[in-house]
Amino acid sequence: MKEIDLNCDMGESFGVYKLGMDEQVMKHISSANIACGFHAGDPLVMDKTIKMAVKNKVGIGAHPGYPDLLGFGRRHIACSPEEIRNYLIYQVSAIKGFCHVHGAKLSHVKPHGALYLDAVEKKDIAQAIARGIMSLDPDLYFVALAGKKGDMMRRMGEELGLKVIYEAFPDRAYTPEGTLLPRKQPGAVISDPDEVAKRALDMANGFVTAVDGTKIELFVQTLCVHGDTLGAVNLVANIRKNLEANDIKVKPMGESPDHGIKTI
Amino acid sequence: MKEIDLNCDMGESFGVYKLGMDEQVMKHISSANIACGFHAGDPLVMDKTIKMAVKNKVGIGAHPGYPDLLGFGRRHIACSPEEIRNYLIYQVSAIKGFCHVHGAKLSHVKPHGALYLDAVEKKDIAQAIARGIMSLDPDLYFVALAGKKGDMMRRMGEELGLKVIYEAFPDRAYTPEGTLLPRKQPGAVISDPDEVAKRALDMANGFVTAVDGTKIELFVQTLCVHGDTLGAVNLVANIRKNLEANDIKVKPMGESPDHGIKTI
Amino acid sequence: MKEIDLNCDMGESFGVYKLGMDEQVMKHISSANIACGFHAGDPLVMDKTIKMAVKNKVGIGAHPGYPDLLGFGRRHIACSPEEIRNYLIYQVSAIKGFCHVHGAKLSHVKPHGALYLDAVEKKDIAQAIARGIMSLDPDLYFVALAGKKGDMMRRMGEELGLKVIYEAFPDRAYTPEGTLLPRKQPGAVISDPDEVAKRALDMANGFVTAVDGTKIELFVQTLCVHGDTLGAVNLVANIRKNLEANDIKVKPMGESPDHGIKTI
Amino acid sequence: MKEIDLNCDMGESFGVYKLGMDEQVMKHISSANIACGFHAGDPLVMDKTIKMAVKNKVGIGAHPGYPDLLGFGRRHIACSPEEIRNYLIYQVSAIKGFCHVHGAKLSHVKPHGALYLDAVEKKDIAQAIARGIMSLDPDLYFVALAGKKGDMMRRMGEELGLKVIYEAFPDRAYTPEGTLLPRKQPGAVISDPDEVAKRALDMANGFVTAVDGTKIELFVQTLCVHGDTLGAVNLVANIRKNLEANDIKVKPMGESPDHGIKTI
Repeated sequence: MKEIDLNCDMGESFGVYKLGMDEQVMKHISSANIACGFHAGDPLVMDKTIKMAVKNKVGIGAHPGYPDLLGFGRRHIACSPEEIRNYLIYQVSAIKGFCHVHGAKLSHVKPHGALYLDAVEKKDIAQAIARGIMSLDPDLYFVALAGKKGDMMRRMGEELGLKVIYEAFPDRAYTPEGTLLPRKQPGAVISDPDEVAKRALDMANGFVTAVDGTKIELFVQTLCVHGDTLGAVNLVANIRKNLEANDIKVKPMGESPDHGIKTI
Repeated sequence: MKEIDLNCDMGESFGVYKLGMDEQVMKHISSANIACGFHAGDPLVMDKTIKMAVKNKVGIGAHPGYPDLLGFGRRHIACSPEEIRNYLIYQVSAIKGFCHVHGAKLSHVKPHGALYLDAVEKKDIAQAIARGIMSLDPDLYFVALAGKKGDMMRRMGEELGLKVIYEAFPDRAYTPEGTLLPRKQPGAVISDPDEVAKRALDMANGFVTAVDGTKIELFVQTLCVHGDTLGAVNLVANIRKNLEANDIKVKPMGESPDHGIKTI
Repeated sequence: MKEIDLNCDMGESFGVYKLGMDEQVMKHISSANIACGFHAGDPLVMDKTIKMAVKNKVGIGAHPGYPDLLGFGRRHIACSPEEIRNYLIYQVSAIKGFCHVHGAKLSHVKPHGALYLDAVEKKDIAQAIARGIMSLDPDLYFVALAGKKGDMMRRMGEELGLKVIYEAFPDRAYTPEGTLLPRKQPGAVISDPDEVAKRALDMANGFVTAVDGTKIELFVQTLCVHGDTLGAVNLVANIRKNLEANDIKVKPMGESPDHGIKTI
Repeated sequence: MKEIDLNCDMGESFGVYKLGMDEQVMKHISSANIACGFHAGDPLVMDKTIKMAVKNKVGIGAHPGYPDLLGFGRRHIACSPEEIRNYLIYQVSAIKGFCHVHGAKLSHVKPHGALYLDAVEKKDIAQAIARGIMSLDPDLYFVALAGKKGDMMRRMGEELGLKVIYEAFPDRAYTPEGTLLPRKQPGAVISDPDEVAKRALDMANGFVTAVDGTKIELFVQTLCVHGDTLGAVNLVANIRKNLEANDIKVKPMGESPDHGIKTI
């Protein structure tokens, strides 16, 4: 029986500001990427979100970002690799502490927003992130982009000895080369719920239909889903239902036997 | 042979802003209380300061504060115990991670500035701090005020099962009741270097001369010293020299056999 | 014909975080208190909110708070009067600049959250706020608590020569002495929409019914309403409708001939 | 008699953190660029620095930067032009308010660090800054890079109708094309005090000696100097002495008749 992980960004509230339908979406996903206080999240939100993840038996990951609450970590900041490595250590350690308090284990690290995008594009940033993770705990899974575009990012993790998890986006269009269509291009984001659920199933089966209609191979271990709106939550429920109806088991990343052993 | 610890606040720089003569004072102390990014410090400063502490074989402690860089953690903020507990977990976890990266062990937690003062005065705050420490690691030493004024703060730690370290201030005047003379009163801070060194020695020997000249008992395991100026650094060197000349061994807190076993 | 102002806190979003139904409530109020970036709000939110206020012909006020985004300005911070005066100048100047950019005039200043509560209780804080306003622009209205409990706060403004606007809370219970019943006491907040609308009308007519049923005098120039939920917005619409149906004109503060001339 | 302005970044302290020898350098310069709280500075520092500038009859300018205290505004942040325009309005308004409080006039705006560098390189950023200034006050001088490399930045200001002040750096090497030698190249920064003082005089006389020894024309209205160390302060004193010994009058920008009227 095949397996796949459904991951979602969580714990992005801050103080009185609420973001995301964490309680609802937590019931349908298998892994939560939890903000660590730099681009979003605060100590109380982290505490509450981890408690919720534990209760729902969801895998817990750190979701570190640039130190930019005002820009929600979505703006590139020209940090040095040394800065990034230390920002990683700080954020991941903080959330690891909360996991310990709740008797939970931190399973993975997935960089947020501009930090993720920069890791895809820039070798020294991908490396700085991987080094930060490695120096803290070599057992942490490093979530990186599946497909050709993510080759460098994943290699930076694998070369250091990290276990890399291949991530794909069921609501995003891919080129025939297996690369994400840039967000600014028309059709880059797919909004039809049935179409997204179908693509999630395809991805779990190792392929995706590119924008030109060709069916291409794509090795995927986790699918990124969203929980910001009621519509998004329903979509996640639908994705999961469709996966399970087609004999794909939804499990936290790292629990599948082949996790972290794929080599490029 | 008697033993005492010399602790000093460290790692209080932030970005381009430098504070304290960490490199110089590190040579003379036995324990460093390292800021965790809330009232001072940042990930790079934490990394660098811990590396320095390891190199100098100095005990490493967390120095958590209120989230108030603008006020350097010196202003009371009306936080709830729940907020304080979570701020503690966040900050102590972050620094614990950096310790791990450098193969070091986090030894103690000493609250900073207004948070320390609030812990002395308010039961729920002392308790929230102690709970934060306890939930992370029951082996962490909790540095609390020696003397009558510190009774409640220390009891909150001891009741939870924490090992409490009794701290005194050789440059501060004490009342005949064994209580710190408030800073605003004349003579509250002692500036004569020889006098301070003499008082440090007295404290290591278990007593202090109060403002009225009476000699009172004071159980002390660690002495708080400062490293902000060249004068302060010289004073620390002088304190240590005087202690050692009088057969008091200067050792990191927790390494003395009686540490954490005093009961009020 | 009698007149009253309806004021509401606005512009409390921050980055991606949305708070309040500003667009909806803006149609029903006459004055907006706009956050200035310390406890909430950011430059883009300020720009957008002022544009909206101008479009809706709503009076524009600064809503300065403590520098505490994490606590939304609801936690007392032990700032010195000098700090508070300068925080006021900074925040009010920033919003005044945005008003200028939009060809609007800044009409008033109403402190936010804990800063307001501290101004009610502490003379030096009320004075520091009043001095900050005065040094920037003596024509700015200073919104302060109506009733006995607000005497000191208002006097601090009036003694400096500021024009003080008396504010009351139609959804809050008052004691027979004309003082707000503390929030923690049962019945402190009134939730029945018709009751709140009736109380708003009473206040516009210069009285309020206290918790013991006695009808007491209360000089009021502006009523504080809320816009956080759809229910709150409907309540504001209802309050306004009821006022106008009873021949009370709803106008921005400062436009009524008697504004700022009441003496205690 | 020829005239030139000496400008220096000021007010870059934050809370307990002190940076720069503001009091000493203020005696030798004619214009102060004062940080506005985003990359450095806080309301108390702004207040104090403006008071000092007024006392020393020094021209007062805003020195806005990216919202990045941790990076001291030296790291590029991928902000949108809309964000930059509003960040400018916010910061310049805040400092304008403090000027008003001290009976002073805000004279100019000079972007800080990465924001300045980005304005030199990117049209939309230069334009966003210029628009922010223009919308607040068309009489504010816009300090921009002299020489060929600064053409675009200055044009963005001039096209909007801003009065642009041409700035040069006496301690930086220039190429034969009149462009700053990038910092990373050897010889980019000149440290010999006499050499810097000589170059400042040359610049005041409208030329500079390039790295290849050729003497090139360079229209300059203000010279950027530094005040971070005692050595830097002495250098500024030396620059001024040398200028005045050679009949160049040191005056705040904007007070020279030709300020703001040069066209490219």
